[in-house]
Amino acid sequence: MLTRLKRLKDNETRKLVGIVLAGKMMAVVLVLGAMQASNWYLNSAAGAATALPQHHPNDFVSPINTMWVLVTAFLVFFMQAGFMGLEAGFARSRETVNILMECVFDTCLCGLLYWAIGFAFQFGAGNGFIGHQYFFLHGITPAYGSTGVAFLAFWLFQFAFADTASTVTSGAMVGRTSFKGDILYSICVSGFIYPIFGHWVWGPGGWLENGSGSLFKTFGTGGAFFRDFAGSTVVHTVGGMIALAGAIALGPRLGRVFKRDGGGPMPAHDLTWGAIGGVILWFGWYGFNPGSTLSAMDWEGIGRVAMNTTIAACAGGMVAVMWVYPQTKKWDLGISVNGFLGGLVAITAPCYWVSPFGAVCIGAIAGIVVPLGINALEHFRIDDPIGAVPVHAFCGIWGTLSLGLFATGQYGIPTPDGADNSTTVNGLFYGGGVNQLKAQFIGSLACILIVTSVALLIMFGIRQIRGSWNLRLDKDSELEGLDIVEHGTPAYHVEFGYGMSYTTPTGASLPGASSIDLKAASENQPV
Amino acid sequence: MLTRLKRLKDNETRKLVGIVLAGKMMAVVLVLGAMQASNWYLNSAAGAATALPQHHPNDFVSPINTMWVLVTAFLVFFMQAGFMGLEAGFARSRETVNILMECVFDTCLCGLLYWAIGFAFQFGAGNGFIGHQYFFLHGITPAYGSTGVAFLAFWLFQFAFADTASTVTSGAMVGRTSFKGDILYSICVSGFIYPIFGHWVWGPGGWLENGSGSLFKTFGTGGAFFRDFAGSTVVHTVGGMIALAGAIALGPRLGRVFKRDGGGPMPAHDLTWGAIGGVILWFGWYGFNPGSTLSAMDWEGIGRVAMNTTIAACAGGMVAVMWVYPQTKKWDLGISVNGFLGGLVAITAPCYWVSPFGAVCIGAIAGIVVPLGINALEHFRIDDPIGAVPVHAFCGIWGTLSLGLFATGQYGIPTPDGADNSTTVNGLFYGGGVNQLKAQFIGSLACILIVTSVALLIMFGIRQIRGSWNLRLDKDSELEGLDIVEHGTPAYHVEFGYGMSYTTPTGASLPGASSIDLKAASENQPV
Amino acid sequence: MLTRLKRLKDNETRKLVGIVLAGKMMAVVLVLGAMQASNWYLNSAAGAATALPQHHPNDFVSPINTMWVLVTAFLVFFMQAGFMGLEAGFARSRETVNILMECVFDTCLCGLLYWAIGFAFQFGAGNGFIGHQYFFLHGITPAYGSTGVAFLAFWLFQFAFADTASTVTSGAMVGRTSFKGDILYSICVSGFIYPIFGHWVWGPGGWLENGSGSLFKTFGTGGAFFRDFAGSTVVHTVGGMIALAGAIALGPRLGRVFKRDGGGPMPAHDLTWGAIGGVILWFGWYGFNPGSTLSAMDWEGIGRVAMNTTIAACAGGMVAVMWVYPQTKKWDLGISVNGFLGGLVAITAPCYWVSPFGAVCIGAIAGIVVPLGINALEHFRIDDPIGAVPVHAFCGIWGTLSLGLFATGQYGIPTPDGADNSTTVNGLFYGGGVNQLKAQFIGSLACILIVTSVALLIMFGIRQIRGSWNLRLDKDSELEGLDIVEHGTPAYHVEFGYGMSYTTPTGASLPGASSIDLKAASENQPV
Repeated sequence: MLTRLKRLKDNETRKLVGIVLAGKMMAVVLVLGAMQASNWYLNSAAGAATALPQHHPNDFVSPINTMWVLVTAFLVFFMQAGFMGLEAGFARSRETVNILMECVFDTCLCGLLYWAIGFAFQFGAGNGFIGHQYFFLHGITPAYGSTGVAFLAFWLFQFAFADTASTVTSGAMVGRTSFKGDILYSICVSGFIYPIFGHWVWGPGGWLENGSGSLFKTFGTGGAFFRDFAGSTVVHTVGGMIALAGAIALGPRLGRVFKRDGGGPMPAHDLTWGAIGGVILWFGWYGFNPGSTLSAMDWEGIGRVAMNTTIAACAGGMVAVMWVYPQTKKWDLGISVNGFLGGLVAITAPCYWVSPFGAVCIGAIAGIVVPLGINALEHFRIDDPIGAVPVHAFCGIWGTLSLGLFATGQYGIPTPDGADNSTTVNGLFYGGGVNQLKAQFIGSLACILIVTSVALLIMFGIRQIRGSWNLRLDKDSELEGLDIVEHGTPAYHVEFGYGMSYTTPTGASLPGASSIDLKAASENQPV
Repeated sequence: MLTRLKRLKDNETRKLVGIVLAGKMMAVVLVLGAMQASNWYLNSAAGAATALPQHHPNDFVSPINTMWVLVTAFLVFFMQAGFMGLEAGFARSRETVNILMECVFDTCLCGLLYWAIGFAFQFGAGNGFIGHQYFFLHGITPAYGSTGVAFLAFWLFQFAFADTASTVTSGAMVGRTSFKGDILYSICVSGFIYPIFGHWVWGPGGWLENGSGSLFKTFGTGGAFFRDFAGSTVVHTVGGMIALAGAIALGPRLGRVFKRDGGGPMPAHDLTWGAIGGVILWFGWYGFNPGSTLSAMDWEGIGRVAMNTTIAACAGGMVAVMWVYPQTKKWDLGISVNGFLGGLVAITAPCYWVSPFGAVCIGAIAGIVVPLGINALEHFRIDDPIGAVPVHAFCGIWGTLSLGLFATGQYGIPTPDGADNSTTVNGLFYGGGVNQLKAQFIGSLACILIVTSVALLIMFGIRQIRGSWNLRLDKDSELEGLDIVEHGTPAYHVEFGYGMSYTTPTGASLPGASSIDLKAASENQPV
Repeated sequence: MLTRLKRLKDNETRKLVGIVLAGKMMAVVLVLGAMQASNWYLNSAAGAATALPQHHPNDFVSPINTMWVLVTAFLVFFMQAGFMGLEAGFARSRETVNILMECVFDTCLCGLLYWAIGFAFQFGAGNGFIGHQYFFLHGITPAYGSTGVAFLAFWLFQFAFADTASTVTSGAMVGRTSFKGDILYSICVSGFIYPIFGHWVWGPGGWLENGSGSLFKTFGTGGAFFRDFAGSTVVHTVGGMIALAGAIALGPRLGRVFKRDGGGPMPAHDLTWGAIGGVILWFGWYGFNPGSTLSAMDWEGIGRVAMNTTIAACAGGMVAVMWVYPQTKKWDLGISVNGFLGGLVAITAPCYWVSPFGAVCIGAIAGIVVPLGINALEHFRIDDPIGAVPVHAFCGIWGTLSLGLFATGQYGIPTPDGADNSTTVNGLFYGGGVNQLKAQFIGSLACILIVTSVALLIMFGIRQIRGSWNLRLDKDSELEGLDIVEHGTPAYHVEFGYGMSYTTPTGASLPGASSIDLKAASENQPV
C-alpha cells in the first residue's frame, strides 16, 4: 500500500490511481443508486405551508433583543481583525507575525477562560467584588437575568468585550515580549483582572455601579452611581493601564531612541493596514456601543448611541489632525487614526446619555488628549508602539469623566422593553451639579489605582522569571527579530519578478529582473 | 519629579519605581477594601426576572425598522474600508498614504458637516430645492417623519451615504491633488452639492421625486416621477460627475502616458487590496440597497433588493471580463472588479422595482459600459486612476435609465408597515410605455447638467488659487511623491531580512541578507 | 470635435474648455431654475406622520426571520473576502492575482448558475435525488416553503453557501490550474455537484435527511436521520473532497519538494493577509451557522449556535498550536489559523444540538485532525497550498460524525416560530446509543464516495483535454508565473523611494535610493 502511494508522485501512476479509484467509487454509487431507484420518481416534496400558531406580542421581545445582541457581538468580535491590521501595520515588519499570532492565540485563550471562569466571575451572582456562579456555564437559564436576551448570546457579546480588553493590552508591548510571557499575562488579564473589575461595574451587585454604594455615600454623590455605558473604563482604561504597566515593566525595544534623545517613533511598516485596521475598529464600535443597550426595543436609544459614536469619532479624528498640523506641517495619517479611535474610546462611557453636541465636544477633546498623551509617553521614555496607552487609557479616563459634564439629564437606562427614564443621569453642564462627576471620578480612580497596581505587580513579577518564561525576550532573539525566533517565519516573502515588479527611483531594474532574464532564471529552478 | 522620571530609562530604576508605585497603590486598595469589607458577604445579586408589561403589536414596528436601518448603515459605513483598499491598491505606492488620509479625513469632515448643515439641507423641510430645518440637529423628533425609524439612526444611514459620495469623488483625482485642495472641494461636496441635490430627489417636497413636478408635466411623463431607489443618480452619478470635473480640472498625473500615445494605465501597486477592497464594497452594498427600504416590515422588498443587487453584480463582473478577454487574451482582474462594481452601481436605482431577470440584464450592460467608459477616458486623455468615472458616473446614468425599461409594474414603494403597491412603477419592456423612461431621463439629465457645471466651476476655481491651496500639487512635490511631501512618510517600510525574506528571479540573495550576516548586522545597530 | 478633444492634453485649452462647458451648463441651469422659480417658495414639506394600521402579532414573524436570514447571508458572502485574503496570503506572490481573480470570477459564475439552475436542483420540488422547480426562479412564492423567509432572501443565503463550497475547492488547486480549467470545473461544482448533493440533505424530500430513508432502515438507525445543521458535509466535505480530487489530478506545483524528500511547504508570501483573512472567515461563520436556523424566533437556538461556534473555534486554534509546538518549538501562526478554521468546520454540523462543553471537545479534536491531515497529505505528496483538504474535508467528516457522539438529546429543529423539540437528536455520549452515529456515518460516507468519485472523473477528464482548456497550465507558463501569463500583471508593484522605504540587514541603502538621488531621478522621468 505504502509503495503504491509513494508512486503517487509519478504522473502516469497518479492518473491511473485516480481513474481506478473513481471507477471503484462509481460502482458503489451505482449500487446505492439501484437501491433508491424504486423511490426515485415516487417521492414528492412536502413544502406545504403550515399554519402559524397564534402569537402573543410579548413573544417578539426576546427574538428582537437576541438578534440585536448577536449582530452587535459579531461586530465586536470583528474588531480583532481591526486590531490585527492596526497593530501589525503600525509595527515593524519583523514583529508582524508575533502580533498576528498573539491576537489569534489570545482570542482562543480568552474564549476558553471566559467559558470556564471569566463569565462566572463577571456576571455570576456573588457579592460586590466577585461572582461565583455559572462556572463552565453550568446552571444557565434560557435568558440572562431579566434581559430577555438568550443566555449564550449574552455570553458571546461579553466574551467579545473581554477579548477586546485583552488585545488592547498587547498593543503597548509589541516587539519585545516573549510569547510565553504573553501567555502568562494574558491568562491574568482575560481570566481574572478584566472579569473581576467588570463585575464591580456591570455584574449583579457590583459595588461600583449597582452596589450598596457606601463609598459613594462617603464622598457624597447624592445618590449618583458610577456609570460606564459600554466600557470606557471597564474595557479601555483597564486594557490601557495594563498596557502601560507592561510597557514600563518591559522597557523600550532595542534601538528605540526617544524624541528628547534625538530619535522618534520607529517607522510603521504598512500604513494601508494601519489605517484600514483603524476603520475596521470604527465599524466594530457600532457593535460595541449600540449593542450595549442589550435591547433593540429601546429603538431611540440605539439610534442615539450609534449617532453619538459616529460624531465623536469624526470630531476626534479632525481635531487630532488639526492639532498636529501646525507643529509638523504634515497631514499625519497615524494621528488621524489614533484621533478617531480616541474619540471612540471617550464616547464609549457617555454615549447613551449625551446629545450629539456633547458627543462632538467629548470627541474633540479626545482628539487633543491623544497627541498630548503620545508626547507624554515619549517624554517619559515609555515605548508604546501603537499608541495604546494614550488612546485607550487616557481617552478612557476622559470619556468616563465627561459623562459627569455632558449628561443631559433626559435619559435613564435601557431595559428589555425600551428605555426607563424614571431615573436619569445629569451632568454639570446641564444643571446636574457635580454629583455625577464625583461618582465618575471615584470609579475611574478605583480602576486606575487598583488595576494598575495589580498589573504592575504581575508584569514585574513575570519580568523576574528566569529563562524563556520571562516577560521580555532575550537580546539576541530580539535583534534577530521576534517573528523568526518565536514563530519560525518572516511575515512576508517577496519573489521579485514573479508576482512583483519594482522600480528604483532612477527607474533602473535590479540585475536579473527583466522579463528576458526571467526565463533564464526559470531554467535554474529546482523543478 | 522630572529628574526622577528621566531616570525611568534606567532599567533598575524603572523596576524600583514600578514596585514602589505598585506598593503605594496596593495600600490604597487595602483601605478601599477595608471600607467594603463589611458589605463583602452581605450583598447578593438581584437578577430576579421582572414581569414584562403587556405589549401592543405596533410597538415592534419601530424597533424592527430601526434595527434594520442601523445594521445596514453600519455596512454602508464599512464601505469606507473598501474604498480605501480599492483606491490605494489600484494606485501607486507613492500616493497611498494620501488616499488613506483623504478617506479618513473626508469621513470626519463629512460627519461634522452633515451634522451641522448637510442633513438640514437634504432632509429638513423647506422648498423643492433646499431644506432648512434641523441645523445641528436642533428640533428633532423621536422618529424621522413617518418612517418609524429613530431620527438619529436615520441620520447615521444618510451620513454614510453622503460619505460615500464624497469618497467616490476622490477616486478620479488620486495622485496630484493637494491635500488643502482636497479639503476645499470636500467641503463643497459633503456640505453642499450632495445634500442639496439629494434634497431634490429624497428630501421632503424635493422637485425631482416628490415635488409639484411641473417639469414632468411639461415633458408629459403621464404622472410618472423620477425614481432613484438607493442612489444610482443621487450618490453615484453625483460623485462620479464631480470626479470627472476634478480630473479634467487637474489634468493627468506627471508621467501618465495614454494608450493613443503609446502608454497605458500606471501599474496598480497592490492588487490584493484592490480586489478585496472591491469585495468589501460589494458587502457594503448590502447595506446600501436593502437598507434603503428604511423598513424591514417590507420583508419581501428587502429580499428582492438584496437578490437583485447580487445578481446584477455577478452579471456585471462576468460580462466585463468576457468583453475584455477577446481583446487582450488576459483574464483581467481589474476589469472584473470594476465590472461588478458597475453592476452594483447600475442596479442601485432600479433594484426595488425589477425582477431578477431584469437585474441580470442591467448588470450585464453595466459590464460593457465600464470597459467602454475606461477606453473613452483614455481616448480623451483624462486620467482617472481608479476608474471612478466609468463605474460611478456612467453606470449610474445607465442604471437610472434602466428603471424606465425594466420596471415590472408589480411594485410600489416600501412603507414602515410593508410595501404599498397602490401606485407601481412601470417600464417600457413590461408594457409601461415611455413615461417612466422620460422621467428617469429628466432626473439623470438634471444631475449631469447641473451638478457637473457647478463642479467644474468649483474645481477650476480652486485650480486658480495661488500657492498651497491650489487644487493641484506643485510639480516638484508630485515628483517626490505625495506621501512624503504632504504626509511626511511613505506607506511602507520594508526590513529585508527582518520579517521579510525574498528571492530574486535567479534565486540569488541580495548581499548581506543571509541569516549569518543578520547577526553581524545586528551588532551595528543602534541599541 | 476630435481635434478639439485632442487638445485637452494642453493645459490652457483644458481650462478654457472647462470654463466654456461650465458656462453653457450654467445657462441650462438658469433656464431650469427660472421654470421652477414660481414654485420655489410655495412648496412645503409633507412629512406628516401617518397613523399606523392595526398590526396582528403574526405580522412580525416574516420580517424578523427575513432580517435574520439577510444579515447572516451578508456575513456568509463576506467570507469571500476572507478566502481571498487567506488563500492569497498563504500562497506565493506569483499566483496571487490568479487566486483573487478565481474568487471574483467564481462568485459571479456561481451567482448566475445558482439563479439559472443551481437553486432549482437544490431547493426545487422533485424527487429524493434532484429538484426541478424554480429554474431561473420562475414560479416563486413570497416566502420559501413554510420558512416565513422571503423567497429571494432565502435564495441569497443559499447562494452564499454555494459560493463558499466553490471557493473551498480552489484552495488546494492554487498555483498550477489554468484559468480555463478553473472555469470548467467551477461550472461543474457550482452548477451541479454542490446543488445536487445539497438537495439530498437539505432539499424537499432529499433522501439523506428528509427522504423515505430506506437506506437508513437497511442499516437500522432506529428512526434517526442524517443531520447536517449548517453544512460540515454539504459544504465543507463536498468542497474539500473535490479539492482533493483536483490536487491529485493536477499533481504538485513545479519546484514543490515534500518533507520526506527534504523540502517542505513553500513560504507564505503575506501572513498579515493570511491571518486576517482567517479572522474574516471566523466572522463570516457567524452568518454561516447561526443563520442556518433560518429563524430568529428560535432565539435560544441562535444564541446557542453562535456560542458553540465560537468556543469550538477557540478550542481548535488552541489545541492545534499546542500540538505542533512540542515538535517545532515554534508558535506556528499558520497552524493556529487552520486550527480554528478546522474547529469552525467541525462544529458546523452539530452546532445546534450540542452543549458548549461538547463544542469544546469537538473543536479540540479538530485541532488535532488539522496537523495530522497536513502531515498525511505531505506524506502522500499531495500539494495542497492552503490546507483546504485537512480543514474542510477531514474536519468536515469529523464534525459530521461528532454529532452522533455529542448531541445532548435536548434539542429538535428550529421552525419559523421557534424551536420544535418534539423530536430530538441524541448522541452516544448522552445516552442516545449509536443510531445517530450510524446515520451520520451513512451520510458522510455517501458524500465521500459519490462526490469524490464524480470529482475525480471530472478533474481527470479536464486534465486530458488538449491545449489551453487542460486543467493544468503548461510548464513554461507555470515557471513564468500564473499572474503574468494568465492575467497580464503581477500582484504588486513596488516603487522604492516613492511611497516605500527599506532597510537591508546591514542598514545599507540600495544605490540611488537616498532622498538626494530622488530629485535627480525625477528629472529623468518621462513627464
